[in-house]
Amino acid sequence: MPQAPKRGFAYPEPVERLIEHLAKLPGIGRRSAERMAFHVLKGDKAEALGLARALTDVKEKVRHCALCFNLTDSSPCPICADSRRDHGLVLVVEQPKDLIALEQTGQYQGVYHVLMGRLSPLDGVGPESLTVDLLLERVGGKGEHSAVREVILGLNPTVEGDGTGLYLADLLHARGVKVTRLARGLPSGGNLEYASKAVLGDAILGRQVV
Amino acid sequence: MPQAPKRGFAYPEPVERLIEHLAKLPGIGRRSAERMAFHVLKGDKAEALGLARALTDVKEKVRHCALCFNLTDSSPCPICADSRRDHGLVLVVEQPKDLIALEQTGQYQGVYHVLMGRLSPLDGVGPESLTVDLLLERVGGKGEHSAVREVILGLNPTVEGDGTGLYLADLLHARGVKVTRLARGLPSGGNLEYASKAVLGDAILGRQVV
Repeated sequence: MPQAPKRGFAYPEPVERLIEHLAKLPGIGRRSAERMAFHVLKGDKAEALGLARALTDVKEKVRHCALCFNLTDSSPCPICADSRRDHGLVLVVEQPKDLIALEQTGQYQGVYHVLMGRLSPLDGVGPESLTVDLLLERVGGKGEHSAVREVILGLNPTVEGDGTGLYLADLLHARGVKVTRLARGLPSGGNLEYASKAVLGDAILGRQVV
Repeated sequence: MPQAPKRGFAYPEPVERLIEHLAKLPGIGRRSAERMAFHVLKGDKAEALGLARALTDVKEKVRHCALCFNLTDSSPCPICADSRRDHGLVLVVEQPKDLIALEQTGQYQGVYHVLMGRLSPLDGVGPESLTVDLLLERVGGKGEHSAVREVILGLNPTVEGDGTGLYLADLLHARGVKVTRLARGLPSGGNLEYASKAVLGDAILGRQVV
């Protein structure tokens, strides 16, 4: 590629190209991209090549698990491949990030299903954009023998997350599977005084016997 | 490298590695790095490989010009190699970024010298950390025939920039070269009412005949 400055004189072509690529990352503007490019220029070569390698590896080695759609560099993913986990219990989440967050609690011994988003009619995200079909396939039809006992809905407590949950619950009930959802209430460490009406309402309705 | 989760369960090794590398970039924390890594995961493969390629190229192809220390992928840099420019006029700047900014005005037809920083005794940056020696070499000693007529100091208008300017002016005067510095005064498009005392003082002292 020849050096083609856009605004009079510009950086050398590789620097300009790096800035343009960096500026496409989320939350990174032209100024930040320049700062990052200069950091790379001044910094350790091995570190820059390590980042380049990591980018390549992520695109070449990381896939979605064919069963649960978790991110993985082996298939099935380590969670689906773990025979010590309860494969009759499936926790449905929107994103791989949510799975990681839940997994880090160490409180869950079942398996997962990553929807790869949530229903969002306004953004044109319908069930066909998500992994809903594959979840239903895992659960199996009514009457069929299904290894899945219970599906836990672990969607975000938002309008769209709740909508998606209702949609899934209907489909899952029709297949005779038990459907639960993650508890809602006061966030541990939070302050009752500042909790929103919605949070307090959830806390009252979901009150637990002590 | 085996998958070695730090906090219970983690992302697949290549994803974790990408996040760690991204989090080393300036202004990027763990959360932003995760967001960027997911953007790369979801995004176009060619784009990610393009970024990887740009990182590698920047470290392998971009050098400092042997004459002026501008960033370049050819040596000497296009400015130093340009015979239509005035090589008797050398504008001294702190960083390659400053050179780009000045060059984009289209107002300057001389050449440059990038100091690669400014004197900063508190941070342990002395003249030996900068390209001062090479500037003096370009200018030549008193009595020697020097092709350099005038050195323009284009350092930042800060305490450290001014200190560096005074230091260079002494050395350059001793070599019998004319030394000037970029004009100071009211910033075009600014508002006199809100200008600082220092700016107004500069504007009064440097007033121009109209």
